[in-house]
Amino acid sequence: MNTFDYSQSQAWFARACKVIPGGIYGHFSPAPCVPVSAYPFFGARAKGAHFWDVDGNEFIDYMCAYGPMILGYAHPAVDEAYQEQMKLADSNTIASTKMVELAEFMVDLIPIADWAFFAKNGADVTNYATMIARAATGRKKIIAIKGGYHGTSPWMQATGHHGLIEDDHANVIRIPWNDFAALENVVNQYDGQIAGFISSPYHHPVFADNEFPAEGYWQKVEQLLRKKGILLIVDDVRCGFRLDLGGSNEHFGFKPDLIAFCKAIGNGYPISALVGAGPLKSFAAKVFHTGSYWYSAGPMAAALACLKELKRINAPNVLRENGTKLNDGLVRIAKSHGYTLKVTGDPGMAYYRLIEDETLMLQQEWCGECTRRGAYFTSHHNWFVSTAHSDEDFQRTWDIADDAFKAIKGR
Amino acid sequence: MNTFDYSQSQAWFARACKVIPGGIYGHFSPAPCVPVSAYPFFGARAKGAHFWDVDGNEFIDYMCAYGPMILGYAHPAVDEAYQEQMKLADSNTIASTKMVELAEFMVDLIPIADWAFFAKNGADVTNYATMIARAATGRKKIIAIKGGYHGTSPWMQATGHHGLIEDDHANVIRIPWNDFAALENVVNQYDGQIAGFISSPYHHPVFADNEFPAEGYWQKVEQLLRKKGILLIVDDVRCGFRLDLGGSNEHFGFKPDLIAFCKAIGNGYPISALVGAGPLKSFAAKVFHTGSYWYSAGPMAAALACLKELKRINAPNVLRENGTKLNDGLVRIAKSHGYTLKVTGDPGMAYYRLIEDETLMLQQEWCGECTRRGAYFTSHHNWFVSTAHSDEDFQRTWDIADDAFKAIKGR
Repeated sequence: MNTFDYSQSQAWFARACKVIPGGIYGHFSPAPCVPVSAYPFFGARAKGAHFWDVDGNEFIDYMCAYGPMILGYAHPAVDEAYQEQMKLADSNTIASTKMVELAEFMVDLIPIADWAFFAKNGADVTNYATMIARAATGRKKIIAIKGGYHGTSPWMQATGHHGLIEDDHANVIRIPWNDFAALENVVNQYDGQIAGFISSPYHHPVFADNEFPAEGYWQKVEQLLRKKGILLIVDDVRCGFRLDLGGSNEHFGFKPDLIAFCKAIGNGYPISALVGAGPLKSFAAKVFHTGSYWYSAGPMAAALACLKELKRINAPNVLRENGTKLNDGLVRIAKSHGYTLKVTGDPGMAYYRLIEDETLMLQQEWCGECTRRGAYFTSHHNWFVSTAHSDEDFQRTWDIADDAFKAIKGR
Repeated sequence: MNTFDYSQSQAWFARACKVIPGGIYGHFSPAPCVPVSAYPFFGARAKGAHFWDVDGNEFIDYMCAYGPMILGYAHPAVDEAYQEQMKLADSNTIASTKMVELAEFMVDLIPIADWAFFAKNGADVTNYATMIARAATGRKKIIAIKGGYHGTSPWMQATGHHGLIEDDHANVIRIPWNDFAALENVVNQYDGQIAGFISSPYHHPVFADNEFPAEGYWQKVEQLLRKKGILLIVDDVRCGFRLDLGGSNEHFGFKPDLIAFCKAIGNGYPISALVGAGPLKSFAAKVFHTGSYWYSAGPMAAALACLKELKRINAPNVLRENGTKLNDGLVRIAKSHGYTLKVTGDPGMAYYRLIEDETLMLQQEWCGECTRRGAYFTSHHNWFVSTAHSDEDFQRTWDIADDAFKAIKGR
């Protein structure tokens, strides 16, 4: 199989480095893409489950823009709804009725939701959730999971990152994932001081196997928090609408007070949402939280169309089927080359690891060899499939994976 | 003159209140629009300097979506650039070359800029600026202006708002606007502890006259901060590209280290930017800051087209001329009715107050009467003109203002 040339990407990256800190920053930074020479840096276009880089290379995309492209790039129904709205108004001096329609649809779709609120970033709504928790309880501490990610606001980042100060974490208590005893200890130790517990519905750190909740974990957590008057906040930014359209908590059988959504909600159009239970609505209304483009109607129309389409096709089932098919094939091919590919997390957004090499170096080599053959795989982050991935895509991916295993043999 | 009926707006608002906290939240909330019965709540469409509400009422818009619509709604050059990019890609798994082109253009346009960084909200980049200041100085305190607004992150909000805790403000020191002696005192009192000073280029609070910098204020500030190794951060989210395309600091003759932009940068498409001086680039690269849609190419293409158009037409001149024309006419009409309309701030984004009534009630009545006749005026916030406002718009606005003064006579 031919491997790709990235000379245009590399030229653009050199140009980017002159005028942008790090060239490309944040979660798009090439830094975790190892070996870096295996990866393209700049895209030219995208359609369905594929994107093309500036060198003209075509990729079957297994990151879906890090989650948003749940229906595939340029989905006709979503794009049409967006464009129809854009002909009327987007940013305006007063709100759009699309906001009301979208809130109504989400309140119908999501069992715990009695209201909805819209912003732009996932962090906008995880921040808002903690402010609501503080307003509603009159308490200040927040419990979070070690290695849990809720955006890059200073309090949410792991300690030790650049630009943070110790005080940022003064009211954040981190406990290990799936450790109910640790939660009980913290709740007792800080009795009456804890406003909320924020967590993803399952644990999806980077550079590590993803972990589902232990049997009964969420049910015990929910019960304890209710007893103690602590609000339960689910950060469904990454998993939302992939596991269950009513919130990933429905998939695991529990009821949080607040759920934060972003990414897949609008198939790539910029919008995030917080939904909550009725008793919190008055507190939510009192917290002042806003942004320049939060009322833009275009992304609201897109989100409404996206959620309707996800419901129409029962997207969680499609994604689970697509993911399971992809994963089974990759595991089988790995095995045929003498490797064990461990697949963790939800099938449609799984994390993959070759267990033969705990350093992840082999895994990086294999992902790189796949990428430079046209299946875009990262080694540090869970992947994402969309409803647009086809059997033809999977067959091509398996062929690529097979060839990539041959390439890394003996390394 | 006829006044407007808002029954559809009110029906939609009742519907909104059922599923959205407060019905409409944040700076779009109808709460400060007093008398509330004078205002529409939901828009249907917008074009140029006008928008239409859900009752079919047409307004000459003096809020420009609270700033973004600098070239008017649905500007052909910006929309075309956006749509061309959207045919290729928007949210994608890898970055877009539009990001590089936009950064290059901004580095050329803005004298202090050696690099640029893009996000979604104004608060994304004001937050980032403070993280960079902390990373670069190893210090933790931030000085800000009393009544200054830099977004709704907890540390930036005024104390006492719902959902905040005392600790949020532990490292923020507020000083009065234009008070160099207060700055000197704080800098000496916290010698070696202050990372940065964040301020708008001039003071534009709500519910109060806007204030320009005193003669020599910024030059003294700049000199003191340089001497003390404190970074100077200009929050140009509201004024940016309206006073001077190179940053509003150029208008007032000083050089900050970092400038935060949002609003007018993309004529309504969702994008914000931080630009900075060369020595901060390595620190900016180390701070981890990211969001789900920060690499979307559509708004970058829009911003590039918007900035090019602003440059081509010398937008700050157009806005100053448009604003001066509007203001002079309104002042003259107020005078003919025996009122003094005080106009403060930049002519193209002025704050208006009828000085006869310090309670602002008369001002509210007059703004309300203008709005219900088709000139959308708020009483609590500075207004905005766009380059799309025409002489015909101003003439119509003056006629409306005249009729509104007649309506409030004797109240």
